[in-house]
Amino acid sequence: MVEALSSPRLLSRHGIRLGRAVKSLNSQRDEFGEGESAVNRVRELVKLCSDWIKGGLSGQELIEELEEECGKLGLSEEFARRLLGLMLDEEERLRGGRPAPSGLKLREFASKVQELQRMGEKVMRLELGEPDFSAPPSVVEAACKALREGYSKYGPATGIKELRQAVASKLSERFGLDLKPENVVITAGGTFAVYGSIEAVTKPGDEVVVIEPAWPLYAHQARWLGRRVLTIRTRFEEDWDPVEMLQEKVSKLTKLIILNYPNNPTGKILDRGSLKAILELAEDAGAWVLGDEVYMDFCYKDGFASVLELPAERKIMVNSFSKTWGMTGFRVGYIVSDPEVAMKVARAQNTAMTCIPEFVQRAALAALSDEESARRNIELIGERLKILYEELSRSKLIEVKPPEGAMYIFPRIKVDGFDSWRFAWTLLEKKRVSIAPGACFGEDYNSYLRISAVLDGEPLREACRRIREAIEEYS
Amino acid sequence: MVEALSSPRLLSRHGIRLGRAVKSLNSQRDEFGEGESAVNRVRELVKLCSDWIKGGLSGQELIEELEEECGKLGLSEEFARRLLGLMLDEEERLRGGRPAPSGLKLREFASKVQELQRMGEKVMRLELGEPDFSAPPSVVEAACKALREGYSKYGPATGIKELRQAVASKLSERFGLDLKPENVVITAGGTFAVYGSIEAVTKPGDEVVVIEPAWPLYAHQARWLGRRVLTIRTRFEEDWDPVEMLQEKVSKLTKLIILNYPNNPTGKILDRGSLKAILELAEDAGAWVLGDEVYMDFCYKDGFASVLELPAERKIMVNSFSKTWGMTGFRVGYIVSDPEVAMKVARAQNTAMTCIPEFVQRAALAALSDEESARRNIELIGERLKILYEELSRSKLIEVKPPEGAMYIFPRIKVDGFDSWRFAWTLLEKKRVSIAPGACFGEDYNSYLRISAVLDGEPLREACRRIREAIEEYS
Repeated sequence: MVEALSSPRLLSRHGIRLGRAVKSLNSQRDEFGEGESAVNRVRELVKLCSDWIKGGLSGQELIEELEEECGKLGLSEEFARRLLGLMLDEEERLRGGRPAPSGLKLREFASKVQELQRMGEKVMRLELGEPDFSAPPSVVEAACKALREGYSKYGPATGIKELRQAVASKLSERFGLDLKPENVVITAGGTFAVYGSIEAVTKPGDEVVVIEPAWPLYAHQARWLGRRVLTIRTRFEEDWDPVEMLQEKVSKLTKLIILNYPNNPTGKILDRGSLKAILELAEDAGAWVLGDEVYMDFCYKDGFASVLELPAERKIMVNSFSKTWGMTGFRVGYIVSDPEVAMKVARAQNTAMTCIPEFVQRAALAALSDEESARRNIELIGERLKILYEELSRSKLIEVKPPEGAMYIFPRIKVDGFDSWRFAWTLLEKKRVSIAPGACFGEDYNSYLRISAVLDGEPLREACRRIREAIEEYS
Repeated sequence: MVEALSSPRLLSRHGIRLGRAVKSLNSQRDEFGEGESAVNRVRELVKLCSDWIKGGLSGQELIEELEEECGKLGLSEEFARRLLGLMLDEEERLRGGRPAPSGLKLREFASKVQELQRMGEKVMRLELGEPDFSAPPSVVEAACKALREGYSKYGPATGIKELRQAVASKLSERFGLDLKPENVVITAGGTFAVYGSIEAVTKPGDEVVVIEPAWPLYAHQARWLGRRVLTIRTRFEEDWDPVEMLQEKVSKLTKLIILNYPNNPTGKILDRGSLKAILELAEDAGAWVLGDEVYMDFCYKDGFASVLELPAERKIMVNSFSKTWGMTGFRVGYIVSDPEVAMKVARAQNTAMTCIPEFVQRAALAALSDEESARRNIELIGERLKILYEELSRSKLIEVKPPEGAMYIFPRIKVDGFDSWRFAWTLLEKKRVSIAPGACFGEDYNSYLRISAVLDGEPLREACRRIREAIEEYS
């Protein structure tokens, strides 16, 4: 073994440190006893991992055993969990790796659309989750005022107390709760709200459940952070209901279930009974529930319940100012949870970016009291969703449900071998309409399209006419 | 083993899934052959890890062997590296874990100071790395203009092209380079610039070298992201020079070396020759170098060289608008590297927060052309550093070097058993002056203080008088 380290390759790369290396390895050999060098142990260990990984794992059933064994040997539960996660990852890699996340290509597609626009082409843009209305003047002026008053210094990683208080009061009033500023952390948009929440309540190797069709960033963030993703694939035929599949798939390995209702892209609203069932299931499994409720205000059917309204110990609500007030580029949102989790999210935010601008938070404070703008925006989206439903229903090749909430419609195209990406490019090229391919939201949804309610009535009808035409011409 | 899973505890928690679990374990047993169940393999593996970890690892020498063995067995190098990282972490935990990061307590301390101020107490605040000057009117007005013009939509995760171009041009001119917008990514302050860079060029389990005394967030971010931290402890007696120690400690396991010159807290400027030596060392080891140059403009001695100026393949420069223009609360900075790394940092930013506000970026654009404000701020800090040096030199109990750059002075207190945290609290209580304890910047610096040059002349002299007094009274 010492000989191996003296190989020419190693000598040339690490010649300078060889003396120390040999000394250290020899002293390790002593510790392990004759013939039991550390390197031999590495060999053994790696062989075992390889056999095990290639044999196929069943993580769900093994984690408890693994923790117990680790406990007996004085190793931490975290070590057990991370080791298991590492092996599951490697197994996945050996089986050919993860499917490419086509959802992340949507921004690329959108840039191509912008390019066309810059070249003078008129494109009807319905591909992004960004309202066409901008932040109301009340919000813009509040930001300017705060800037001029010098609110541009470092602030707390939790966000400013005034805004946390205002969020707590508003939600308490709406849902009959008694939330405190300590329950709220202001985040860099809904995006960091989810990212920070994943960091706060899970560890690398933990399992995060994502319900598809889904915003692509849930799975992407979880994997980015070294968590494993378990996908639940809801179906059009079952009215996108996830409850039964969750009951089947949630296990002791599950640490977090991400819900998103009203849903992007389907517009589904989960009723109170189903939400209750999921929260109970999660409690049973010891898992957290994250309710991404950024479309909370966009409900066009009764029955929506927030995770905040139902009893459960482990829950986080995520929200954003982006959609209701057209403040996408302000990057301001929040999480609501118990004070301990809130503090963990704040710590994650502090670690990644110190804090978020106070003048942005003061703009958000102004938004909260501008209920008129919110109401107008919500009505506007509602009217457009109706138009989308009406117009798309006219084609026999399109199957569509009346949207219940959010700002999207998610029709299924009844054309054999339909490919949503191919269609999106053709539609853009031939009809100058851009939509989001269903494949962005999960592998199973390649015969769907997501169309955003971000154009006014007449142009929206025109865009729908072109979509219908393009589907008829598609082959 | 099947019996173990039928224990009452498990039955009650997972009764519903027991049937499936048993079935799955039995089928695994078949795959591994008689008596070779997956669970037995887990037991073996864990036992081996435990022995190995408790025997003490020498990761530096083992990684190559481990990769080779993994390669032979069809396991990836990443698996080898992550497994080693996991074991090194567990070993550290068994030895009593990481020292508590006292640097992160500084913000807590600062909040206490604010509380005192709110209660009407006058405190001379020198504890934070935040200039007392605010963003110049040119910057504030540019932000307001952009807000009113509707620059408040989603933007690219890289930052807007105009600002990337402006940064590239400015640095190209200053250092005689030919940088393109593709080399630049606009980030949420210097904080995310470092966080995103760590994510871009290292993986969990990789070693990141931090040179102490250091901004506490380097080590914290690296550990937060599952990287391991190797600390280099530079010494007052050696003029804070890190080169020799780096030559000793950098190994094949090292994936990133973080440099910060002009330095926070010592104010040291690394000369061109030393920087060159470090870059060569890093190239040899295949490691990246991150030059955090947020104090680049605050140089009061010749000799500073940017990592951008010297040839090396693997380098990232980090900068921020926070210090030069007093824009701490705007949260805007940038990284400069090769286009591939730049894209990775942008991806990290996209994952965590989608993008940063465009109106903030347009304010940064205005800052870049407001050279007068920058010059005034830099001169101001320079004058104050001189005052700090003069005033602190008067005490025989204080050892101090003339500050070369940045906006801090880092005196050593020659009092036996000096405790920087205890002193900081006493100073605040008795003299109403707040400073940052040396312990915030590394374990070895408990007899040091960091004093920020963020007060004007006369008050600054008064604060120094009080610090001298408090040191004389300290026992």
